[in-house]
Amino acid sequence: MAFCDKSECECRFSDSFFIFCMSQVNAPRIKDIALKAGVSIGTVDRVLHNRGEVARETRERILRIAGEMHYSPNLMARALKSKKKLQLVALLPDASGENEFWARHRNGLDEAMKSFEPFNLSLEVISFDLHQDDDFLLKSETVLALHPDGILLAPILKYQSQQFCDKLTGQGIPYVFFDSFIDETAFLSYTGEDAYQSGRVGAQLIDYGTPVDKDIVVVNLARDLANTLHLNDRTQGFLSYFVDSGMNRGRQLCLEIKNSEYSRVVEVLDEIMTSNGNIGAIFVTSSKAHKVARFLEQHGRTDVVLVGYDLLDRNVSYLRQGVIRFLISQRPAEQTERCVRKLFDYLLSDKQPVRMEYLPVDVVTSENVRYFF
Amino acid sequence: MAFCDKSECECRFSDSFFIFCMSQVNAPRIKDIALKAGVSIGTVDRVLHNRGEVARETRERILRIAGEMHYSPNLMARALKSKKKLQLVALLPDASGENEFWARHRNGLDEAMKSFEPFNLSLEVISFDLHQDDDFLLKSETVLALHPDGILLAPILKYQSQQFCDKLTGQGIPYVFFDSFIDETAFLSYTGEDAYQSGRVGAQLIDYGTPVDKDIVVVNLARDLANTLHLNDRTQGFLSYFVDSGMNRGRQLCLEIKNSEYSRVVEVLDEIMTSNGNIGAIFVTSSKAHKVARFLEQHGRTDVVLVGYDLLDRNVSYLRQGVIRFLISQRPAEQTERCVRKLFDYLLSDKQPVRMEYLPVDVVTSENVRYFF
Repeated sequence: MAFCDKSECECRFSDSFFIFCMSQVNAPRIKDIALKAGVSIGTVDRVLHNRGEVARETRERILRIAGEMHYSPNLMARALKSKKKLQLVALLPDASGENEFWARHRNGLDEAMKSFEPFNLSLEVISFDLHQDDDFLLKSETVLALHPDGILLAPILKYQSQQFCDKLTGQGIPYVFFDSFIDETAFLSYTGEDAYQSGRVGAQLIDYGTPVDKDIVVVNLARDLANTLHLNDRTQGFLSYFVDSGMNRGRQLCLEIKNSEYSRVVEVLDEIMTSNGNIGAIFVTSSKAHKVARFLEQHGRTDVVLVGYDLLDRNVSYLRQGVIRFLISQRPAEQTERCVRKLFDYLLSDKQPVRMEYLPVDVVTSENVRYFF
Repeated sequence: MAFCDKSECECRFSDSFFIFCMSQVNAPRIKDIALKAGVSIGTVDRVLHNRGEVARETRERILRIAGEMHYSPNLMARALKSKKKLQLVALLPDASGENEFWARHRNGLDEAMKSFEPFNLSLEVISFDLHQDDDFLLKSETVLALHPDGILLAPILKYQSQQFCDKLTGQGIPYVFFDSFIDETAFLSYTGEDAYQSGRVGAQLIDYGTPVDKDIVVVNLARDLANTLHLNDRTQGFLSYFVDSGMNRGRQLCLEIKNSEYSRVVEVLDEIMTSNGNIGAIFVTSSKAHKVARFLEQHGRTDVVLVGYDLLDRNVSYLRQGVIRFLISQRPAEQTERCVRKLFDYLLSDKQPVRMEYLPVDVVTSENVRYFF
């Protein structure tokens, strides 16, 4: 192994990457091929990049030698040299108010972009309002108008996302999914939770700690559940666990609360808890477990096991108090960070990412939550 | 931002790092300082590296300009240029037979070394036999004879490790701990679990799923428990949970089994299960939960909740069968991978690592175990 010893080279060192000037003896350079072929660097360059005229015989000799030396042109290096600018756009729900969960995905984007600071890569983040039907359409048009090289998308509104994806496919713009995915599209890669399996984990945790004869309630807090993919998958996974593995002999009741204002949550829970005195556990399929926690706390229902999703401040606060027993976490920041990396690799070096990358389903309790921040 | 456009530069791209030749406009080089100071590169070099004669006035001008330009000599780059070879040694328990747990740490070492392949870094792995008293001493002498630049140590044998650390400190060899740590030494950094806290997590998991009036057994399978730090810490953490947070009103019984042969484990468990019909849960503080699982399975004791540590094949097999309820995992491969990185950074760029780096206490069940491989 030998290292670059150019006296004018000053190398940089960052937390995330080692960035420095080096060449390995076993990584052949154009220079080495030229030397071996007895031609100029320019000639090798013309052959390898398929431009300009080179005598057929010379051309063949150069390609043969390049092959023997296992020369692989590094597309990223080439792109860097050509000062090609890459523009990515991330399209995800607005993180304000009720939807603070989405702030963590933005952290991941920020982290990724820090690592890519030395590169000619830019990222535009565009968010849509989950509660306005037309906003996704509007924002997706904005995205297209930017003519991006690649797109990161949280396709939680299934129908709208699907239409958008069809446009992207038509225009040849690669896109990666995070948080959830839509099977029927030509996405490059998905990075995120296995929603069905995380539902099974939730069921297992409830099954283990709830008396066997108690009833269990699944709460879906979503304006349009049919169109909210991952909540459906979590519910399906949850129920499947009890069908084939659970010990619990109670009933599983599914609630859908379209309006997630607290007063409405109280109303629905009051009704079911009054009509059914046998409820032992509640599984909230989204990050809004804190609303159910607030209800349980106010009603002194310490006997009900509550399991929900995501490390929102309000959820974590109820977790620490013991009102929420478990939070399932899906590493949102890691999702988007990996997505940026995948698109970058793909665009610059044609590196095809793994199509489905499931991140671990993390089980978070009041005793291990400290490590997740 | 500008990138290196040296035509002879061929850049490489690896999975773990982007390695390429570049210089950023805002990172001043010796050449830039020379230009601004109106002197030769050699003169700047002599001043910055404090060698050779340079007129006082010139020297001061150069240092002032270097300061104004925020020049920071990159030690890593320098080390690379000087072809300085770094030799690390990892000293950890042998992974054979009973101690297969330690194989995962070696995987982390392998992974790290893959990333560092382009560097002039070598790593020697030396393992000691946990069951031979003198072997650690013998192996630590072997380590010293290699005159390493830095050491990775799993100091699970407290007294012996402490003596070894004193020697390292005396010789000025930096060392990092993984798996466990010894407070009273001058270690550079610890990467691993918070053993006390992981014991609390274990207690919480048992407390949640065990009937409140049942007794709980803590099993320590260790030849010399007093000298096995992390098992003590886990036990203390476990017991502390019941003192200040637990709902369980049963007793906590602590067993120490010095000889962990299965026949001996059967003997001890048989005795306690016969004399106490009220045992509802068992917490095994080490990776040997599979031995207790085997006992429970053979005795048809599906009523006992079993929690243990580490994703050994035999443990995972019992986890999938439901005999082990939870395994607590401490990311062994990530521990050693991070240790190599820390030593490398420290040795090459004087980058002081965080002294205590606790990795997450992972809660693993039969439903989420798939993501941990």
